[in-house]
Amino acid sequence: MDSGSQRLAPAADIACSTASEKFMALASELAAVGRGFYARGWVLGTSGNFSAVISHEPMRLAITSTGLDKGALDAASFIEMDESARVVGGSGKPSAEALLHLAIVRELGAGAVLHTHSVWSTVLSGANAARGVVEIRGYEMLKGLGGVRTHEHTEWLPILENSQDMTELSVRVTKLLRDRRELHGFLLREHGLYTWGATVQEAKRHVEIFEFLMEVVVRASALPRAESTEKGS
Amino acid sequence: MDSGSQRLAPAADIACSTASEKFMALASELAAVGRGFYARGWVLGTSGNFSAVISHEPMRLAITSTGLDKGALDAASFIEMDESARVVGGSGKPSAEALLHLAIVRELGAGAVLHTHSVWSTVLSGANAARGVVEIRGYEMLKGLGGVRTHEHTEWLPILENSQDMTELSVRVTKLLRDRRELHGFLLREHGLYTWGATVQEAKRHVEIFEFLMEVVVRASALPRAESTEKGS
Amino acid sequence: MDSGSQRLAPAADIACSTASEKFMALASELAAVGRGFYARGWVLGTSGNFSAVISHEPMRLAITSTGLDKGALDAASFIEMDESARVVGGSGKPSAEALLHLAIVRELGAGAVLHTHSVWSTVLSGANAARGVVEIRGYEMLKGLGGVRTHEHTEWLPILENSQDMTELSVRVTKLLRDRRELHGFLLREHGLYTWGATVQEAKRHVEIFEFLMEVVVRASALPRAESTEKGS
Amino acid sequence: MDSGSQRLAPAADIACSTASEKFMALASELAAVGRGFYARGWVLGTSGNFSAVISHEPMRLAITSTGLDKGALDAASFIEMDESARVVGGSGKPSAEALLHLAIVRELGAGAVLHTHSVWSTVLSGANAARGVVEIRGYEMLKGLGGVRTHEHTEWLPILENSQDMTELSVRVTKLLRDRRELHGFLLREHGLYTWGATVQEAKRHVEIFEFLMEVVVRASALPRAESTEKGS
Repeated sequence: MDSGSQRLAPAADIACSTASEKFMALASELAAVGRGFYARGWVLGTSGNFSAVISHEPMRLAITSTGLDKGALDAASFIEMDESARVVGGSGKPSAEALLHLAIVRELGAGAVLHTHSVWSTVLSGANAARGVVEIRGYEMLKGLGGVRTHEHTEWLPILENSQDMTELSVRVTKLLRDRRELHGFLLREHGLYTWGATVQEAKRHVEIFEFLMEVVVRASALPRAESTEKGS
Repeated sequence: MDSGSQRLAPAADIACSTASEKFMALASELAAVGRGFYARGWVLGTSGNFSAVISHEPMRLAITSTGLDKGALDAASFIEMDESARVVGGSGKPSAEALLHLAIVRELGAGAVLHTHSVWSTVLSGANAARGVVEIRGYEMLKGLGGVRTHEHTEWLPILENSQDMTELSVRVTKLLRDRRELHGFLLREHGLYTWGATVQEAKRHVEIFEFLMEVVVRASALPRAESTEKGS
Repeated sequence: MDSGSQRLAPAADIACSTASEKFMALASELAAVGRGFYARGWVLGTSGNFSAVISHEPMRLAITSTGLDKGALDAASFIEMDESARVVGGSGKPSAEALLHLAIVRELGAGAVLHTHSVWSTVLSGANAARGVVEIRGYEMLKGLGGVRTHEHTEWLPILENSQDMTELSVRVTKLLRDRRELHGFLLREHGLYTWGATVQEAKRHVEIFEFLMEVVVRASALPRAESTEKGS
Repeated sequence: MDSGSQRLAPAADIACSTASEKFMALASELAAVGRGFYARGWVLGTSGNFSAVISHEPMRLAITSTGLDKGALDAASFIEMDESARVVGGSGKPSAEALLHLAIVRELGAGAVLHTHSVWSTVLSGANAARGVVEIRGYEMLKGLGGVRTHEHTEWLPILENSQDMTELSVRVTKLLRDRRELHGFLLREHGLYTWGATVQEAKRHVEIFEFLMEVVVRASALPRAESTEKGS
């Protein structure tokens, strides 16, 4: 399809139509994922944004228009943007955080990027801001992260200071991802989670895994650990 | 439309029909919002009430009839009332708290007012009653409040003592809103949240933002903050 | 309708058909309420049971058959029983706790009785078992209980020791309700809530109010109260 | 049906068709159960797996294919496997944990095995790992476990150390179940719950009961117990 777009008119037409179909398919898939996240309370109040790569070369992303109710997403809620976050299809403005989506896609070759604002990510990133990281280890659910094969894995979930300067923040994100290519996500302090995947479904799985683990980490920290083994009854 | 209502019969008829259509549209929109809040547990047990402005001049509001199950709202669950909380359309009685809705619309020119009773607003307003306010700062989600552009914003969420005397309480609300026009909402102690917006959708967004933030504030207060930076693994 | 059942055949036929229609209407209404409670996690694992009065004289109740998944209730999930908990219509066995439903209907003339097993009622009744009561005061939501007009009301929610001997337990329930006719519900220790109302809808409202308030009471007890008034910012 | 499969061609055909219908019926039933668990957050991120016995002799199980989104399960999400976890019908790979399902079915003659990953099971099994067990007693909800007749029952819920070696783990599970035939479930540390039943519906009920009780146990441990009886008001 991508190589097809360099050929003659008829083939290009087909490629165009195919690209447009891919946009629609990705936008519909992201919309369904987003409505599910809204139902769980992870993207309340128009928070959050979602993108997927239509093509890497040239770079084209389907991404949520800014300011929409995520409980009412459909394919028309998405615009198509290029590598500079310029709108090249659909109507609306890309999310202010489009630069972060682009940084992640560029650095890691991700196929989809999902950003949520949950209670647990907000609370956890606030409580651990001074350390700059949450380390998660020992949980079976870690195996839901791409490439992780055992619960003995330690996932390093960095916390970046929040900012309204998206250019500056996208530079910090780019730097972080260059240093730490093994990451599956990061937190913005008292803001939320960014995670990604090769596909929309993998990125969705990563959101579910991280949201689960963050709740577990907070709840476990409130619970005393039982001592030794006075088993049975 | 508003000016149309001062003209001759045919035009007035049209205006009437338009006002009636506006009532139906707002009532339907509020009903959908209310059913969603019920699903989240924010208006259980017939609690809560919702209104939207049909016209400011003369003042006409669509508002929930009192005592209804918010999980079963539809357009017929709403009545139309004037600036004195008298019913001028539909059947039923306006909520006892209609005077508070009117005070908010009058003072701030709001287009919609939403009142919810959540667990988190009840608990938070009880715990902070002696201080008379909850201050919320540093959270990205604050940007979901109209006109807020940065997480560095401090939102002042006042707590008014609860009362069954709605006339007296509406005077206190009016006074509060005159002194503090920058507010986006307030709490009634161990009762719930009032918030508003230019439109039903903005008011809905404000409910979601405040409900999210109140849960965050309570949960964060229970969590110790990590010290300094022994990063990495 | 009730008096009609003492007349001649044709009228009795009509009364019968009417009674049968009333059974169906109440069973359908209870089924819808029950599915909603299941969705909220208040009657998991076939727990809970629901009844409504078809007639007081003779006493006829529609009540859930024992052991059903409350997420799959429909009218066929209910049987009709008499004042001795004997099945007089429908197929199935009444809940083992049918005697408690009968005691409540007999003592208070209730039209519907609902019993739920929630996490909050289980935890709250366990923590306060030694005191034998939870007192709830100061919350606006108390006004959702029949006849309560102010948040300054104190609701006395007794905790009865749990038992598998339903005859013995129904005697204790009867005694409690004779002494305390102002009650709106009671807890069985580490078991759940019983509440009732003149109608199914009122009883449903009472469940929602109590479930809300029990969660509030537990969460509020975990939260320190702020001191005095260093207001504003 | 099973004996029918030893006869002549036509009967065998019928038996085959019947076995295939049984597979479809069980797969559809498990799919519905799984989607419900996903909605409650018990099998996020493709976690969890579900099986039911088509026949014991020869051993045939319908079991979830590995790596599926449990919110989108349907009958096609299941494969049929034999007593060695070899696929004998449907397309896909059985869950890596198929050996544990087989161990449970073999040792206890269970008709269905359900495995969930909830926040509460993860937190509870982590906090009590050193003791190797959670004992649950005194709760009415215990009666939802097969054969339990009173809340005075003590349920012994063992915690096995988690492992990625399924052969080794299935040996430990087999040994546990031989020693403790009265069990209704067990936990894998910081991983999740295994429970079972004679039917899919009984196993579903056991999941709901255990998930409820685990949340109760964690929440109750955080709550101080009230002293004695300064009753009334």
